[in-house]
Amino acid sequence: MNNVEEFFQLSAGKWFSHRTSHHLAFKQSESGKSDITIEMLAADHPEVIKLCEQYAIDPNRASCGARVSWNGTMEWDEQKHVGSTVLVTVPDEDNPHEGKLLREMGYAEKMPVAGSYKMGSDGALTLTTEYETMWSEERLWFASPNLRMRVSVLKRFGGFSMASFTSEIRMGGAAPAATASEAANSVSS
Amino acid sequence: MNNVEEFFQLSAGKWFSHRTSHHLAFKQSESGKSDITIEMLAADHPEVIKLCEQYAIDPNRASCGARVSWNGTMEWDEQKHVGSTVLVTVPDEDNPHEGKLLREMGYAEKMPVAGSYKMGSDGALTLTTEYETMWSEERLWFASPNLRMRVSVLKRFGGFSMASFTSEIRMGGAAPAATASEAANSVSS
Repeated sequence: MNNVEEFFQLSAGKWFSHRTSHHLAFKQSESGKSDITIEMLAADHPEVIKLCEQYAIDPNRASCGARVSWNGTMEWDEQKHVGSTVLVTVPDEDNPHEGKLLREMGYAEKMPVAGSYKMGSDGALTLTTEYETMWSEERLWFASPNLRMRVSVLKRFGGFSMASFTSEIRMGGAAPAATASEAANSVSS
Repeated sequence: MNNVEEFFQLSAGKWFSHRTSHHLAFKQSESGKSDITIEMLAADHPEVIKLCEQYAIDPNRASCGARVSWNGTMEWDEQKHVGSTVLVTVPDEDNPHEGKLLREMGYAEKMPVAGSYKMGSDGALTLTTEYETMWSEERLWFASPNLRMRVSVLKRFGGFSMASFTSEIRMGGAAPAATASEAANSVSS
Protein backbone atom coordinates (compact mmCIF):
# COMPACT_ATOMS: atom_id res chain seq x y z
CA MET A 1 0.00 0.00 0.00
CA ASN A 2 1.41 3.34 -0.86
CA ASN A 3 -1.42 5.61 -1.75
CA VAL A 4 -3.31 7.75 0.68
CA GLU A 5 -6.77 6.67 -0.54
CA GLU A 6 -5.95 3.05 0.37
CA PHE A 7 -4.64 4.21 3.72
CA PHE A 8 -7.93 5.99 4.43
CA GLN A 9 -9.88 2.95 3.26
CA LEU A 10 -7.98 0.64 5.57
CA SER A 11 -8.56 3.14 8.38
CA ALA A 12 -12.34 3.11 7.97
CA GLY A 13 -14.20 1.50 10.86
CA LYS A 14 -14.34 1.61 14.63
CA TRP A 15 -11.21 1.67 16.71
CA PHE A 16 -10.27 1.60 20.35
CA SER A 17 -7.59 4.26 20.59
CA HIS A 18 -5.13 4.50 23.46
CA ARG A 19 -2.87 7.52 23.53
CA THR A 20 0.06 8.33 25.80
CA SER A 21 1.85 11.67 25.66
CA HIS A 22 5.32 12.23 27.04
CA HIS A 23 5.94 15.83 28.11
CA LEU A 24 9.64 15.93 27.39
CA ALA A 25 10.73 18.83 29.58
CA PHE A 26 8.73 17.69 32.59
CA LYS A 27 9.39 13.93 32.24
CA GLN A 28 5.71 13.34 32.82
CA SER A 29 3.21 11.35 30.83
CA GLU A 30 -0.55 11.35 30.51
CA SER A 31 -2.93 8.95 28.86
CA GLY A 32 -6.28 9.07 27.14
CA LYS A 33 -8.59 6.41 25.78
CA SER A 34 -11.15 6.93 23.10
CA ASP A 35 -13.48 5.11 20.78
CA ILE A 36 -12.89 6.44 17.28
CA THR A 37 -15.04 6.03 14.19
CA ILE A 38 -13.56 6.75 10.77
CA GLU A 39 -15.82 6.99 7.71
CA MET A 40 -14.47 7.38 4.19
CA LEU A 41 -16.05 10.22 2.24
CA ALA A 42 -16.05 10.16 -1.56
CA ALA A 43 -14.18 12.99 -3.27
CA ASP A 44 -17.51 14.46 -4.36
CA HIS A 45 -19.21 14.24 -0.96
CA PRO A 46 -20.86 17.58 0.04
CA GLU A 47 -18.67 17.83 3.17
CA VAL A 48 -15.52 17.40 1.07
CA ILE A 49 -16.66 20.08 -1.37
CA LYS A 50 -17.55 22.43 1.49
CA LEU A 51 -14.13 22.05 3.13
CA CYS A 52 -12.30 22.65 -0.16
CA GLU A 53 -14.32 25.82 -0.64
CA GLN A 54 -13.38 27.03 2.85
CA TYR A 55 -9.74 26.75 1.82
CA ALA A 56 -10.41 28.25 -1.63
CA ILE A 57 -9.27 25.04 -3.33
CA ASP A 58 -10.95 23.62 -6.45
CA PRO A 59 -13.03 20.65 -5.13
CA ASN A 60 -12.10 18.67 -8.24
CA ARG A 61 -8.56 18.41 -6.88
CA ALA A 62 -9.65 16.48 -3.76
CA SER A 63 -8.74 12.78 -3.90
CA CYS A 64 -10.61 11.56 -0.83
CA GLY A 65 -12.00 12.52 2.53
CA ALA A 66 -12.81 11.09 5.92
CA ARG A 67 -14.90 11.97 8.89
CA VAL A 68 -13.24 11.12 12.22
CA SER A 69 -15.42 11.04 15.35
CA TRP A 70 -14.17 10.42 18.88
CA ASN A 71 -15.67 9.74 22.28
CA GLY A 72 -13.14 9.40 25.04
CA THR A 73 -11.67 10.36 28.36
CA MET A 74 -8.36 11.85 29.38
CA GLU A 75 -6.56 10.86 32.55
CA TRP A 76 -6.53 14.34 34.08
CA ASP A 77 -10.29 14.80 34.08
CA GLU A 78 -13.21 12.45 34.09
CA GLN A 79 -15.18 14.37 31.51
CA LYS A 80 -16.12 12.87 28.20
CA HIS A 81 -14.40 14.39 25.20
CA VAL A 82 -16.68 14.06 22.19
CA GLY A 83 -16.09 15.58 18.79
CA SER A 84 -15.57 15.04 15.11
CA THR A 85 -13.66 16.52 12.23
CA VAL A 86 -13.48 16.16 8.45
CA LEU A 87 -10.20 15.56 6.61
CA VAL A 88 -9.64 16.01 2.89
CA THR A 89 -6.56 15.12 0.84
CA VAL A 90 -5.53 17.29 -2.10
CA PRO A 91 -2.62 15.64 -3.96
CA ASP A 92 0.11 17.73 -5.53
CA GLU A 93 -0.42 17.89 -9.26
CA ASP A 94 3.01 16.50 -10.06
CA ASN A 95 3.22 13.92 -7.22
CA PRO A 96 0.15 12.09 -5.91
CA HIS A 97 2.07 10.67 -2.92
CA GLU A 98 2.24 14.11 -1.36
CA GLY A 99 -0.15 16.96 -0.98
CA LYS A 100 -2.26 19.10 1.29
CA LEU A 101 -4.35 17.77 4.13
CA LEU A 102 -7.33 19.99 4.90
CA ARG A 103 -8.98 19.71 8.30
CA GLU A 104 -12.15 21.19 9.61
CA MET A 105 -10.34 21.96 12.84
CA GLY A 106 -6.69 21.72 13.95
CA TYR A 107 -6.03 19.15 16.64
CA ALA A 108 -3.98 21.55 18.71
CA GLU A 109 -5.49 24.95 17.93
CA LYS A 110 -9.15 25.51 17.27
CA MET A 111 -8.89 27.18 13.88
CA PRO A 112 -8.98 25.66 10.41
CA VAL A 113 -5.45 24.79 9.36
CA ALA A 114 -4.05 23.07 6.26
CA GLY A 115 -1.29 20.57 6.81
CA SER A 116 0.53 18.36 4.39
CA TYR A 117 0.67 14.61 3.92
CA LYS A 118 3.25 12.27 2.48
CA MET A 119 2.77 8.57 1.76
CA GLY A 120 6.05 6.71 2.24
CA SER A 121 7.15 3.77 0.13
CA ASP A 122 6.99 1.76 3.38
CA GLY A 123 3.23 2.33 3.66
CA ALA A 124 3.47 4.89 6.47
CA LEU A 125 1.58 8.16 6.22
CA THR A 126 3.28 11.30 7.57
CA LEU A 127 1.21 14.37 8.39
CA THR A 128 2.85 17.72 9.07
CA THR A 129 1.07 20.77 10.38
CA GLU A 130 2.42 24.21 11.09
CA TYR A 131 0.51 26.40 13.48
CA GLU A 132 1.39 29.94 14.43
CA THR A 133 3.54 29.04 17.42
CA MET A 134 4.06 25.33 16.89
CA TRP A 135 4.79 22.54 14.47
CA SER A 136 3.65 18.96 14.61
CA GLU A 137 4.52 15.83 12.68
CA GLU A 138 2.62 12.58 12.95
CA ARG A 139 3.55 9.22 11.46
CA LEU A 140 0.76 6.66 11.08
CA TRP A 141 1.19 3.05 10.02
CA PHE A 142 -0.45 -0.33 10.23
CA ALA A 143 1.28 -3.08 12.19
CA SER A 144 -1.51 -5.26 10.78
CA PRO A 145 -4.95 -4.50 9.26
CA ASN A 146 -6.37 -4.45 12.81
CA LEU A 147 -3.60 -2.59 14.62
CA ARG A 148 -2.84 0.99 13.65
CA MET A 149 -0.08 2.98 15.31
CA ARG A 150 0.66 6.68 15.44
CA VAL A 151 3.63 8.62 16.77
CA SER A 152 3.61 12.39 16.85
CA VAL A 153 6.03 15.06 17.96
CA LEU A 154 5.16 18.62 18.82
CA LYS A 155 7.60 21.49 18.64
CA ARG A 156 7.05 24.86 20.26
CA PHE A 157 9.35 27.80 19.69
CA GLY A 158 11.89 25.59 17.95
CA GLY A 159 12.21 22.89 20.62
CA PHE A 160 10.47 19.53 20.94
CA SER A 161 7.98 19.69 23.80
CA MET A 162 5.90 16.54 23.46
CA ALA A 163 6.02 13.07 21.93
CA SER A 164 2.83 11.01 21.75
CA PHE A 165 2.12 7.42 20.95
CA THR A 166 -1.26 5.99 20.02
CA SER A 167 -2.11 2.33 19.54
CA GLU A 168 -5.44 1.65 17.86
CA ILE A 169 -7.18 -1.70 17.80
CA ARG A 170 -10.01 -2.33 15.36
CA MET A 171 -13.27 -3.12 17.10
CA GLY A 172 -15.43 -5.87 15.71
CA GLY A 173 -19.13 -6.38 16.08
CA ALA A 174 -18.94 -8.04 19.49
CA ALA A 175 -18.82 -6.43 22.93
CA PRO A 176 -15.96 -3.91 23.07
CA ALA A 177 -13.97 -5.68 25.81
CA ALA A 178 -14.05 -9.02 24.04
CA THR A 179 -13.39 -7.38 20.71
CA ALA A 180 -10.24 -5.61 21.71
CA SER A 181 -8.88 -8.79 23.14
CA GLU A 182 -9.87 -10.80 20.09
CA ALA A 183 -8.45 -8.23 17.72
CA ALA A 184 -5.21 -8.17 19.68
CA ASN A 185 -4.95 -11.93 19.81
CA SER A 186 -6.28 -12.95 16.46
CA VAL A 187 -4.13 -10.79 14.20
CA SER A 188 -1.50 -12.75 12.36
CA SER A 189 1.45 -11.18 10.60
CA MET B 1 22.42 8.42 7.77
CA ASN B 2 21.77 4.94 6.62
CA ASN B 3 24.38 2.72 8.10
CA VAL B 4 24.13 0.99 11.43
CA GLU B 5 27.57 2.07 12.65
CA GLU B 6 26.53 5.74 12.33
CA PHE B 7 23.29 4.95 14.12
CA PHE B 8 25.23 3.44 17.03
CA GLN B 9 27.62 6.39 17.03
CA LEU B 10 24.77 8.89 17.23
CA SER B 11 23.26 6.78 20.03
CA ALA B 12 26.39 6.95 22.19
CA GLY B 13 25.98 9.00 25.35
CA LYS B 14 23.62 9.36 28.28
CA TRP B 15 19.88 9.42 27.78
CA PHE B 16 16.81 9.90 29.88
CA SER B 17 14.51 7.17 28.64
CA HIS B 18 10.75 7.18 29.21
CA ARG B 19 8.87 4.07 28.17
CA THR B 20 5.12 3.42 28.06
CA SER B 21 3.71 0.01 27.20
CA HIS B 22 0.16 -0.56 26.03
CA HIS B 23 -1.17 -4.01 26.87
CA LEU B 24 -3.50 -4.36 23.93
CA ALA B 25 -5.90 -7.02 25.20
CA PHE B 26 -6.30 -5.41 28.63
CA LYS B 27 -6.39 -1.76 27.46
CA GLN B 28 -3.97 -0.93 30.24
CA SER B 29 -0.68 0.91 30.12
CA GLU B 30 2.38 1.04 32.33
CA SER B 31 5.37 3.32 32.36
CA GLY B 32 9.01 3.16 33.28
CA LYS B 33 11.77 5.72 33.44
CA SER B 34 15.44 5.01 33.19
CA ASP B 35 18.80 6.62 32.74
CA ILE B 36 20.58 4.85 29.92
CA THR B 37 24.23 4.96 28.95
CA ILE B 38 25.32 3.75 25.52
CA GLU B 39 29.00 3.23 24.76
CA MET B 40 30.27 2.35 21.30
CA LEU B 41 32.62 -0.64 21.23
CA ALA B 42 35.09 -1.07 18.40
CA ALA B 43 34.67 -4.18 16.26
CA ASP B 44 37.83 -5.62 17.80
CA HIS B 45 36.90 -4.88 21.43
CA PRO B 46 37.35 -7.97 23.67
CA GLU B 47 33.65 -7.94 24.60
CA VAL B 48 32.66 -7.94 20.93
CA ILE B 49 34.97 -10.84 20.19
CA LYS B 50 33.67 -12.76 23.20
CA LEU B 51 30.04 -12.36 22.15
CA CYS B 52 30.78 -13.46 18.57
CA GLU B 53 32.47 -16.55 19.93
CA GLN B 54 29.42 -17.36 22.08
CA TYR B 55 27.37 -17.39 18.88
CA ALA B 56 30.05 -19.27 16.95
CA ILE B 57 30.47 -16.37 14.53
CA ASP B 58 33.83 -15.29 13.13
CA PRO B 59 34.66 -12.07 15.09
CA ASN B 60 36.09 -10.54 11.90
CA ARG B 61 32.55 -10.28 10.56
CA ALA B 62 31.40 -7.91 13.37
CA SER B 63 30.99 -4.31 12.21
CA CYS B 64 30.46 -2.63 15.57
CA GLY B 65 29.27 -3.08 19.10
CA ALA B 66 27.73 -1.20 21.98
CA ARG B 67 27.32 -1.60 25.68
CA VAL B 68 23.94 -0.42 26.95
CA SER B 69 23.54 0.16 30.72
CA TRP B 70 20.31 1.17 32.45
CA ASN B 71 19.25 2.32 35.86
CA GLY B 72 15.55 2.90 36.23
CA THR B 73 12.24 2.28 37.88
CA MET B 74 9.00 0.77 36.65
CA GLU B 75 5.61 2.05 37.71
CA TRP B 76 4.43 -1.19 39.28
CA ASP B 77 7.25 -1.47 41.81
CA GLU B 78 9.56 1.00 43.41
CA GLN B 79 12.64 -1.12 43.01
CA LYS B 80 15.59 -0.01 40.98
CA HIS B 81 16.18 -1.97 37.79
CA VAL B 82 19.87 -1.90 37.01
CA GLY B 83 21.58 -3.85 34.29
CA SER B 84 23.62 -3.82 31.12
CA THR B 85 23.99 -5.75 27.92
CA VAL B 86 26.34 -5.88 24.94
CA LEU B 87 25.09 -5.68 21.36
CA VAL B 88 27.08 -6.62 18.26
CA THR B 89 26.14 -6.13 14.61
CA VAL B 90 27.18 -8.71 12.02
CA PRO B 91 26.28 -7.45 8.52
CA ASP B 92 25.14 -9.85 5.83
CA GLU B 93 27.98 -10.47 3.42
CA ASP B 94 25.98 -9.33 0.40
CA ASN B 95 24.07 -6.43 2.05
CA PRO B 96 25.62 -4.30 4.80
CA HIS B 97 22.26 -2.61 5.60
CA GLU B 98 20.98 -5.84 7.08
CA GLY B 99 22.40 -8.50 9.31
CA LYS B 100 22.42 -10.25 12.63
CA LEU B 101 22.20 -8.47 15.95
CA LEU B 102 23.85 -10.43 18.75
CA ARG B 103 22.90 -9.63 22.34
CA GLU B 104 24.37 -10.78 25.57
CA MET B 105 20.86 -11.24 26.89
CA GLY B 106 17.40 -11.06 25.30
CA TYR B 107 15.26 -8.19 26.52
CA ALA B 108 12.23 -10.37 27.05
CA GLU B 109 13.71 -13.76 27.90
CA LYS B 110 16.87 -14.23 29.87
CA MET B 111 18.81 -16.32 27.39
CA PRO B 112 21.23 -15.27 24.65
CA VAL B 113 19.28 -14.69 21.45
CA ALA B 114 20.33 -13.47 18.01
CA GLY B 115 18.00 -11.05 16.30
CA SER B 116 18.32 -9.25 13.02
CA TYR B 117 18.68 -5.59 12.11
CA LYS B 118 17.78 -3.59 9.06
CA MET B 119 18.77 0.01 8.36
CA GLY B 120 16.07 1.76 6.35
CA SER B 121 16.77 4.36 3.68
CA ASP B 122 14.85 6.77 5.95
CA GLY B 123 17.47 6.42 8.69
CA ALA B 124 15.34 4.22 10.95
CA LEU B 125 16.78 1.03 12.42
CA THR B 126 14.48 -1.98 12.72
CA LEU B 127 15.35 -4.83 15.06
CA THR B 128 13.52 -8.14 14.91
CA THR B 129 13.86 -10.90 17.45
CA GLU B 130 12.23 -14.30 17.52
CA TYR B 131 12.01 -16.05 20.83
CA GLU B 132 10.55 -19.49 21.43
CA THR B 133 7.01 -18.32 22.14
CA MET B 134 7.13 -14.73 20.93
CA TRP B 135 8.29 -12.33 18.30
CA SER B 136 9.23 -8.70 18.69
CA GLU B 137 9.97 -5.88 16.30
CA GLU B 138 11.39 -2.53 17.32
CA ARG B 139 11.82 0.55 15.17
CA LEU B 140 14.30 3.19 16.39
CA TRP B 141 14.83 6.61 14.87
CA PHE B 142 16.10 10.08 15.67
CA ALA B 143 13.62 12.95 15.65
CA SER B 144 16.75 15.07 16.15
CA PRO B 145 20.30 14.30 17.36
CA ASN B 146 19.07 14.76 20.95
CA LEU B 147 15.69 13.00 20.73
CA ARG B 148 15.60 9.29 19.95
CA MET B 149 12.33 7.40 19.64
CA ARG B 150 11.52 3.70 19.73
CA VAL B 151 8.31 1.82 19.03
CA SER B 152 8.11 -1.91 19.57
CA VAL B 153 5.43 -4.52 19.14
CA LEU B 154 5.36 -7.91 20.80
CA LYS B 155 3.50 -10.89 19.44
CA ARG B 156 2.70 -13.99 21.43
CA PHE B 157 1.20 -17.10 19.88
CA GLY B 158 0.51 -15.26 16.63
CA GLY B 159 -1.34 -12.23 18.07
CA PHE B 160 -0.09 -8.79 19.03
CA SER B 161 -0.07 -8.48 22.80
CA MET B 162 1.86 -5.30 23.52
CA ALA B 163 2.92 -2.05 21.86
CA SER B 164 5.55 0.12 23.54
CA PHE B 165 6.78 3.63 22.96
CA THR B 166 10.02 5.08 24.29
CA SER B 167 11.15 8.69 24.04
CA GLU B 168 14.79 9.31 24.86
CA ILE B 169 16.31 12.70 25.55
CA ARG B 170 20.04 13.15 25.50
CA MET B 171 21.43 14.31 28.82
CA GLY B 172 24.10 16.99 28.83
CA GLY B 173 26.72 17.69 31.45
CA ALA B 174 24.42 19.72 33.73
CA ALA B 175 22.09 18.48 36.43
CA PRO B 176 19.75 15.85 35.00
CA ALA B 177 16.51 17.80 35.59
CA ALA B 178 17.79 20.96 33.94
CA THR B 179 19.39 18.93 31.18
CA ALA B 180 16.27 17.14 30.06
CA SER B 181 14.43 20.41 29.92
CA GLU B 182 17.21 22.10 28.00
CA ALA B 183 17.58 19.24 25.60
CA ALA B 184 13.85 19.22 24.98
CA ASN B 185 13.70 22.93 24.45
CA SER B 186 16.91 23.62 22.62
CA VAL B 187 16.67 21.08 19.85
CA SER B 188 16.00 22.62 16.49
CA SER B 189 14.96 20.70 13.43
